[in-house]
Amino acid sequence: MALSTDRSFVLTLSCPDRPGIVAAVSSYLFRAGGNILDAQQFDDGETGHFFMRVVFNLADPDPQLAGVKPGFVPIAERFAMAWTMRDRDEKRRVMLLVSKFDHCLTDILYRQRLGELPMTITAVVANYPRENYARIDFGDAPFHYLPVSRETKAEQEEKLWRLVQDTRTELVVLARYMQVLSDDLATRLAGRCINIHHSFLPGFKGAKPYHQAQIRGVKLIGATAHYVTGDLDEGPIIEQDVERITHRDTPDDLVRKGRDIERRVLARALRHHLRDRVILNGRKTVVFTD
Amino acid sequence: MALSTDRSFVLTLSCPDRPGIVAAVSSYLFRAGGNILDAQQFDDGETGHFFMRVVFNLADPDPQLAGVKPGFVPIAERFAMAWTMRDRDEKRRVMLLVSKFDHCLTDILYRQRLGELPMTITAVVANYPRENYARIDFGDAPFHYLPVSRETKAEQEEKLWRLVQDTRTELVVLARYMQVLSDDLATRLAGRCINIHHSFLPGFKGAKPYHQAQIRGVKLIGATAHYVTGDLDEGPIIEQDVERITHRDTPDDLVRKGRDIERRVLARALRHHLRDRVILNGRKTVVFTD
Amino acid sequence: MALSTDRSFVLTLSCPDRPGIVAAVSSYLFRAGGNILDAQQFDDGETGHFFMRVVFNLADPDPQLAGVKPGFVPIAERFAMAWTMRDRDEKRRVMLLVSKFDHCLTDILYRQRLGELPMTITAVVANYPRENYARIDFGDAPFHYLPVSRETKAEQEEKLWRLVQDTRTELVVLARYMQVLSDDLATRLAGRCINIHHSFLPGFKGAKPYHQAQIRGVKLIGATAHYVTGDLDEGPIIEQDVERITHRDTPDDLVRKGRDIERRVLARALRHHLRDRVILNGRKTVVFTD
Amino acid sequence: MALSTDRSFVLTLSCPDRPGIVAAVSSYLFRAGGNILDAQQFDDGETGHFFMRVVFNLADPDPQLAGVKPGFVPIAERFAMAWTMRDRDEKRRVMLLVSKFDHCLTDILYRQRLGELPMTITAVVANYPRENYARIDFGDAPFHYLPVSRETKAEQEEKLWRLVQDTRTELVVLARYMQVLSDDLATRLAGRCINIHHSFLPGFKGAKPYHQAQIRGVKLIGATAHYVTGDLDEGPIIEQDVERITHRDTPDDLVRKGRDIERRVLARALRHHLRDRVILNGRKTVVFTD
Repeated sequence: MALSTDRSFVLTLSCPDRPGIVAAVSSYLFRAGGNILDAQQFDDGETGHFFMRVVFNLADPDPQLAGVKPGFVPIAERFAMAWTMRDRDEKRRVMLLVSKFDHCLTDILYRQRLGELPMTITAVVANYPRENYARIDFGDAPFHYLPVSRETKAEQEEKLWRLVQDTRTELVVLARYMQVLSDDLATRLAGRCINIHHSFLPGFKGAKPYHQAQIRGVKLIGATAHYVTGDLDEGPIIEQDVERITHRDTPDDLVRKGRDIERRVLARALRHHLRDRVILNGRKTVVFTD
Repeated sequence: MALSTDRSFVLTLSCPDRPGIVAAVSSYLFRAGGNILDAQQFDDGETGHFFMRVVFNLADPDPQLAGVKPGFVPIAERFAMAWTMRDRDEKRRVMLLVSKFDHCLTDILYRQRLGELPMTITAVVANYPRENYARIDFGDAPFHYLPVSRETKAEQEEKLWRLVQDTRTELVVLARYMQVLSDDLATRLAGRCINIHHSFLPGFKGAKPYHQAQIRGVKLIGATAHYVTGDLDEGPIIEQDVERITHRDTPDDLVRKGRDIERRVLARALRHHLRDRVILNGRKTVVFTD
Repeated sequence: MALSTDRSFVLTLSCPDRPGIVAAVSSYLFRAGGNILDAQQFDDGETGHFFMRVVFNLADPDPQLAGVKPGFVPIAERFAMAWTMRDRDEKRRVMLLVSKFDHCLTDILYRQRLGELPMTITAVVANYPRENYARIDFGDAPFHYLPVSRETKAEQEEKLWRLVQDTRTELVVLARYMQVLSDDLATRLAGRCINIHHSFLPGFKGAKPYHQAQIRGVKLIGATAHYVTGDLDEGPIIEQDVERITHRDTPDDLVRKGRDIERRVLARALRHHLRDRVILNGRKTVVFTD
Repeated sequence: MALSTDRSFVLTLSCPDRPGIVAAVSSYLFRAGGNILDAQQFDDGETGHFFMRVVFNLADPDPQLAGVKPGFVPIAERFAMAWTMRDRDEKRRVMLLVSKFDHCLTDILYRQRLGELPMTITAVVANYPRENYARIDFGDAPFHYLPVSRETKAEQEEKLWRLVQDTRTELVVLARYMQVLSDDLATRLAGRCINIHHSFLPGFKGAKPYHQAQIRGVKLIGATAHYVTGDLDEGPIIEQDVERITHRDTPDDLVRKGRDIERRVLARALRHHLRDRVILNGRKTVVFTD
């Protein structure tokens, strides 16, 4: 079947479960000239919530979804849906925050260049000066040095928040940004701020997790990407992974092995988010992986 | 929403892709009083084929699907679907074939007892006598000793086939059955005979794969569960897994480590099949994992 | 080089580090007619402790190590070693403790039968009656029903301890034995009692770890085999492993997936112990894996 | 015990097995004032070959091993050893060859900068011009553009070989260098040229392995790092790893997922080589992992 465009679109939604949701959504898309390419649903029996992700294309060109999107509003209202609908290739506007260690930053920049991460970097913000990242090519991304101390934290976060607004940033990534966000900022960024924690949560919360892991003598170490909430290290988990270690591994070895886990876990979580594969489910996430 | 029954049902289908399939299916289920609990779709861009698996329950009791199933026929015909619809807890009738090594057999029997594998074992068929499995409790499953040699192969397969028919067996599992089925029998069992091969296919086809692996010096060994076809070790793959080995591992160590991989790969593949999670896609499979 | 016997022996030792240990040990073994087949050493820079495991065979038959073992005493004393030396195929005497769930027990029994676990089972002890394990073949292993309640705990443990002594049990395995040992018994069994905990420690200590994991929304679940100490879930870790889960997994699914992780983690830890691959290092372990 | 230096050294050796090797080596090191920090031995029962890796430090400073190394020669001769002994922090001289895709190159450069890979890059050689790598910072490493066609292959390899000699290169890394080396060059670089193949060998040898994998419908894809020999894709394997894929993955997805596997497998293999953890054993390798 010949469709007039290669463009495809993603609809995500969540709402209280009741019969007829899939029928209403898919019938609407069919009437609107859409063809479903991929879809996943999930009914959380515990909470009675329903989650859905649909990828579709359209028989008639409608690149801005000018017709399809407004037409969906009545259905969304009928089922009390939280929903999004957008061009699958639309680039999200993403701000990267980083401290001294740049392995996650470097990895994200590289993957973006390769086309793995459909996003525009609105800013790289660091609490270390530009010299700390001397050998990194930021491309078009503007760099901001926003140092922070206990005394200046409120002020620095105010600058951060203004930058988020000025740059119309849609997602903030804490790419090993070793500062705890205030409750206030965490709340303002709810659902659109991803952190990488260098342990397999809930094990080894707080500071120096590799050091803790080495003292405890665990046989695997891990990393966790999660949405930031006011509750430190307790936000909804998007992705985790681990690697095997042995008694021979010093804390330095764990840091080295951990870098690999951190960067791949953060990259996967970021990609899932950018591809609209993650839907919040209270303190948890629904991740419709490919 | 209170549904009148805890029963749930599974619909699987594949057909040439065209717009409106999901809409037609979900609208029909809605009209029939169904509620979709879980669903996954997949559109194979290469072959133009569409695949779908839907789990639903019903507002009105219809344990035999006496109403819902016939009503679906016109939709299935309209889209030229290959499809199945059944009670999710319906036990499939499964025959287990085994040779000398009983680790897969033992594991399957144990998992069935625990309720992990919704099936009725129609027969355990072995080319070794019952004494070889002296310490295994077959429960209600009848045991058949069907020895085989080059000369008696045709005859033995004829007995096998009759047993399949007499017992109304729906799925045959080669649980380390070290005999190659004839093209003829493989064809008759197409899509309903699962084999476990003790290598990570397509590496190390044929005999003594662990021995081959040890000679080649690979750093991981694996196992592959696949549907049996006339083309040896080339059938559609359902599941694979691997484990790390080292230079210290002798062929005997590989056999030991391999047992663990084989039994978990076969158990997963079998469970996927019994839960209607596997749909054939030419020489490949679509597996809608949970 | 032709050695007069296929027998091989294992020496393990730990002591404060200082130069000359390997030289003293290997020179002694050479003088005693030994040939080193495999050896691993580890110097813990943090604690200044040295660990070594040597597999060797002997030119002259000495099946009881009647000559080699006494001759090693002066070296052991010179370096203040904790050490063991034994026939690699010597079967350790092992007692299995179990509660309602029998998947670890069943798996251990099966592996022993296959020869994966060089041990003699001195007793299977359960706090459920024999009927609970109706379909399990214990072979030669005597079964003991030792029910326990808060009131009878001291008394039951006394019976347990007497059984350990009467049967000359060298290792106790808590194969999903859902009772916390008293500090007293834990101390008496220090270094020779292995437990399988159904979480990836230190995450989800205590009761109902799968339930906790499901509520927290982690993306991997795991299991941990460790030596039992008075400090619950804090003993030295021998082995851990994890498996991926998704938002679709209910607590029941986690229990099912967890069974597979638990049984393979416990089996590996048990094998490591029986093969003299584990040496205690304070609150941690040194595991010389193959 | 206070040692006069933080420096440590690595001795690797292989020789026909016979009793007394470990005793001779460790006694010599002891007499020379050494302390063994880590050691692993392996006796290949099949080939009768013995392998050993020892890390030690010295009581008296001998940074050039001016005393220790010559003193070891008689022992090496007595046992007909192939051996190396060097400062653990000595940087090996490494040449990187690359074609169009730069993910392995970028990763290696980044890891070197972080100190994960103790080496000096003698040259980056590419069959694409410098512009192809415009955004990569080569640091001090000189870049050479050596285009190649069927006609100029012999000539280009001659230039390559001269560059290897002129730069005193000790190891050549084919970091996705999409050219097959001639038998002649492969032979000259035997044991000191590492290639990354983008499949889990021996599956999917030759060209377009991800494409082959997608057609075959495997459930895991992998990568293999091996020493280059004249026999294409048959050289001794150093390291392999895999990742899970699904029916949803297009060939492009496999290429993307494969990049992650390739770069981590190559980095591990390279680090193993640079840390003297790999010893050749005929067509296989002994890898003494940490």
